[in-house]
Amino acid sequence: MGPAAGADFVRLFVQACARRMAAAGRPVTDQGFPEHWLAQVPVPDRSRALADTTPGPHQPLDPMLDALGRLHSLGARAVAIACNTAHAWHAPLQAGCPALDLLHIADETAAHLAAAGVRQAILLATEGTYATGLYDAALARAGVACHLPTAAERATVMHGIYAGVKAGDMALARRCFAGVTGAMAVRHPGSAVVMGCTEIPLALPDAEEARHWQLVDPTAVLAEALARRAYAAG
Amino acid sequence: MGPAAGADFVRLFVQACARRMAAAGRPVTDQGFPEHWLAQVPVPDRSRALADTTPGPHQPLDPMLDALGRLHSLGARAVAIACNTAHAWHAPLQAGCPALDLLHIADETAAHLAAAGVRQAILLATEGTYATGLYDAALARAGVACHLPTAAERATVMHGIYAGVKAGDMALARRCFAGVTGAMAVRHPGSAVVMGCTEIPLALPDAEEARHWQLVDPTAVLAEALARRAYAAG
Repeated sequence: MGPAAGADFVRLFVQACARRMAAAGRPVTDQGFPEHWLAQVPVPDRSRALADTTPGPHQPLDPMLDALGRLHSLGARAVAIACNTAHAWHAPLQAGCPALDLLHIADETAAHLAAAGVRQAILLATEGTYATGLYDAALARAGVACHLPTAAERATVMHGIYAGVKAGDMALARRCFAGVTGAMAVRHPGSAVVMGCTEIPLALPDAEEARHWQLVDPTAVLAEALARRAYAAG
Repeated sequence: MGPAAGADFVRLFVQACARRMAAAGRPVTDQGFPEHWLAQVPVPDRSRALADTTPGPHQPLDPMLDALGRLHSLGARAVAIACNTAHAWHAPLQAGCPALDLLHIADETAAHLAAAGVRQAILLATEGTYATGLYDAALARAGVACHLPTAAERATVMHGIYAGVKAGDMALARRCFAGVTGAMAVRHPGSAVVMGCTEIPLALPDAEEARHWQLVDPTAVLAEALARRAYAAG
């Protein structure tokens, strides 16, 4: 739900659509893409709202519900949210807009890993996502063991997200994400690395060490799942 | 208006907003970005409609007017169209939606070049854009001479746009765009290169020879202009 991540999600969705057209033997033309809208609306910080669950203007549910309602008015049938932490509100969002098919990033990722035969995963995410157990539960249901960073490593990941990607310092972000991944890969050899916050794939894949790891981008998995819905519905 | 170009425009707009926050000494946070929506709706091919001006479902004006109206209903105040050729319909679009500030990509680019002291420019664009004289007129008003490719070179640029970028073959696109630019740079030394179709900046800057040329991306100029409007209005 960071605006840079939102822009990147559109790019991934467009690529996924182009792959579907090519796989179906159709020419890839502008007119072959499904209609799609990107809503980037101001939403309070999701990790902060999970740390302070009192009601108030720092809660993101109402602005997110409002954006969903506007997308529904535009004729949207399926919606993906390009923010892992925001999925803590998936149930009330889906309940508040039952006519929409609201995709779930962790369920899509778990199904993708299981289909690829992955049995162990390292999870990089925000404190908010760890607190909700979003991926732990989805991965467990799919039979994939989920390894979490230590408290100090989590703080390093958060620093890479906020002082790194969100503030535009990609070198700092790479150092933070690669340092934590390297240490965890030693403890949990053979694990895939789930980049469970949309800011992480904007920096970690460019780290020198990244070629040694099996990186999984849930945002790319989500984009693929949305493209699948778009062509199935057409 | 190609979906890949639309996705790239959001990326450029987000970057322009981040630069504005940083320049104003404000922290760059998700909540500091203005609300913005991307509409990617099926619109008939713009170059084809300019080649065949008879009325009919191959004309893009009505679908574009419809999208503008929906953006206005969402509360949009300023709109940028990430497609050069579509600007052939700028006047009827602006007349049909007078409450919106509809930016003009060629006017913004011409003002940008003049402010940078550029006096000569090579124009790479679609046949549709050449036919409308979109940039020629805007550059002339700003005192910038505009150099156009030969008919054979135009055909090569169109091949790079359609068989290259739009079809996902970036290597072919690079060869087409760089070949024409290299030949024109010999004929018109000291010219800036205006990449006057949104597909061109997705390939030409990655060509080996590109470091010798002063490439100007009107889409980036347009994104900067839209960010300026967004923060001025806030």
